[in-house]
Amino acid sequence: MGIKKRIGPQTVRFSSPPAVLSCACAAGVKECQGPLGKCVDVPCEDDLLGQDSWEKAESQLQRYALDAVLRKAGAEADSLDVIFAGDLLNQCIGSSFGLRDAGAPFYGLYGACSTMSESLSLAAMSIDGGFAKRAMAITSSHYCSAERQFRLPIDYGAQRAPTAQWTVTGSGAVLLEKKKPRPAASGVHITHVTTGKIIDAGITDSSNMGAAMAPAAYDTLSAFFNESGLGPEKHDLIVTGDLGAVGMQIVRDLFLDDGVDLGKRYNDCGVMVFDLDKQDVHAGGSGCGCSAVVLCGHIINEMRAGTWKNVLFCGTGALLSQVSSLQGDSIPGICHLVRFSSEVM
Amino acid sequence: MGIKKRIGPQTVRFSSPPAVLSCACAAGVKECQGPLGKCVDVPCEDDLLGQDSWEKAESQLQRYALDAVLRKAGAEADSLDVIFAGDLLNQCIGSSFGLRDAGAPFYGLYGACSTMSESLSLAAMSIDGGFAKRAMAITSSHYCSAERQFRLPIDYGAQRAPTAQWTVTGSGAVLLEKKKPRPAASGVHITHVTTGKIIDAGITDSSNMGAAMAPAAYDTLSAFFNESGLGPEKHDLIVTGDLGAVGMQIVRDLFLDDGVDLGKRYNDCGVMVFDLDKQDVHAGGSGCGCSAVVLCGHIINEMRAGTWKNVLFCGTGALLSQVSSLQGDSIPGICHLVRFSSEVM
Repeated sequence: MGIKKRIGPQTVRFSSPPAVLSCACAAGVKECQGPLGKCVDVPCEDDLLGQDSWEKAESQLQRYALDAVLRKAGAEADSLDVIFAGDLLNQCIGSSFGLRDAGAPFYGLYGACSTMSESLSLAAMSIDGGFAKRAMAITSSHYCSAERQFRLPIDYGAQRAPTAQWTVTGSGAVLLEKKKPRPAASGVHITHVTTGKIIDAGITDSSNMGAAMAPAAYDTLSAFFNESGLGPEKHDLIVTGDLGAVGMQIVRDLFLDDGVDLGKRYNDCGVMVFDLDKQDVHAGGSGCGCSAVVLCGHIINEMRAGTWKNVLFCGTGALLSQVSSLQGDSIPGICHLVRFSSEVM
Repeated sequence: MGIKKRIGPQTVRFSSPPAVLSCACAAGVKECQGPLGKCVDVPCEDDLLGQDSWEKAESQLQRYALDAVLRKAGAEADSLDVIFAGDLLNQCIGSSFGLRDAGAPFYGLYGACSTMSESLSLAAMSIDGGFAKRAMAITSSHYCSAERQFRLPIDYGAQRAPTAQWTVTGSGAVLLEKKKPRPAASGVHITHVTTGKIIDAGITDSSNMGAAMAPAAYDTLSAFFNESGLGPEKHDLIVTGDLGAVGMQIVRDLFLDDGVDLGKRYNDCGVMVFDLDKQDVHAGGSGCGCSAVVLCGHIINEMRAGTWKNVLFCGTGALLSQVSSLQGDSIPGICHLVRFSSEVM
């Protein structure tokens, strides 16, 4: 008895591709000064957002993104069948405190910075599987809460490595719904997801997350190309989540070793979200909020405007903790792929 | 256009209930000395399991549970279409390091101690939705890694509150597969899941998790009873994840206020896993591993033996972190329900 939607060991093709009903993002001051600043739905005037801690500010970012995505859809939170949410904080408090008043069924996720594509994958499956009519995917990160938790409080003024990345202060949310019957179908749909495996290349430098995650991005993209038969040339944009300049070059090189030139269609949300020359972010942006803000503020809107028709969105995560690093362990990476298309009829 | 599988705001009824192919658990010394000790597939001789840290020992527990569940099914890890996994440690390293060599598509989850029912819910949806033929749900916890992370290292010998619970050292795994066509269908299947909402009753005492989680258990069970039309009397066992003696009594009382007596059919994995009179665990067991070990070592096997036919398994989680508690925030709870039945034809 076959599983028709499963087209390979890691890849699912939806029988009725879920549609993006709306998307929205909130972001901090530095992000709004970057190249995509004008795409942010809720630009924040300072990074505390009226809260008394960085962690509460991160929860507030999720509330802003949730409110904005519902407002744009003309929907209420209680119309959501399920929310898939996550963040980088210990015990995912950005999500659980940010969304505790939403009153909707809630699944918490942890995929490190890959969580935006993980949440989109599961939200899309919940719809195509017939379990939900409307499902939300939402994630966040905050520079100050992440620095305090994973590195040092920013007040210490520690020097950052050239390969280090700058955690994006932001949250993005996508509201998915069941595909409308023809001929009404239009807009942006999710056609495929490829679920990542844990890939550990033995990197131990926690200031070089791009290098730790790049092999996972290569692995998942290769699986998608092989299993779907849709190669790089079938896509207008292939975008990784937060490999930054260092990790992005590694992915390029790994594909070049296979004789595949990803070319100009390949980009990375961590490279897109900041001006790497002018904003002093070293290798680029990172965090659950990085790919979420770039997807929800920029990519989906550009797809709607016709700039891109078929996009591979590949969230990338480093599955380490402070404890695993202090115990000398290496940094496993993971990458989940979501294929968006505006050509679904 | 209706969503036939969705029978209420929180509840899904599967069109083709996924079957339990196999289940297995590994557990520590104290757990094996408890009332369910003889049900443990992999009893550990000490709680370090040959590792050099408690966190690595927790990952080892997941490896033991994974190996055992695959062995019992006569399956290889690469036959898994997807693993849903989680634990309580920061950044879920119990799962990511425990399963990094499994080589299977992996989704990390965080639902605190509710993660076993969250992982089962999503694994079952992945199968009934047509996305996977075989899916695994696996979680773990470890007394020593949890104490060090959430409270104090055990070496400090801190005194425990009477309402405190004892984190179970253990891991449980369930391997689900697509239901076989009649007449071959037999054994234990998952018929329904009810996805929990975040419920915050304002409890701030992190030594009284049972009280913090009980309102969520009441909320999810009530939603299931209302939406499915299957009341308590239709079930042989209703079991919460880790409310312990304190939280369990609160759930009883909340239902009594509604005129519903859960009676003897109601139990709690935290109360079942230890001998509360003799094992000095205060209010009972807790942790992601608590409900996992009781489900995989005891409940499913008793269902196979005919002791129980219809069981509501309700994992309960407290969505706090050390930081949220130190910042004075209350403890949001969540409960996800999975209904098992041996009467699916």
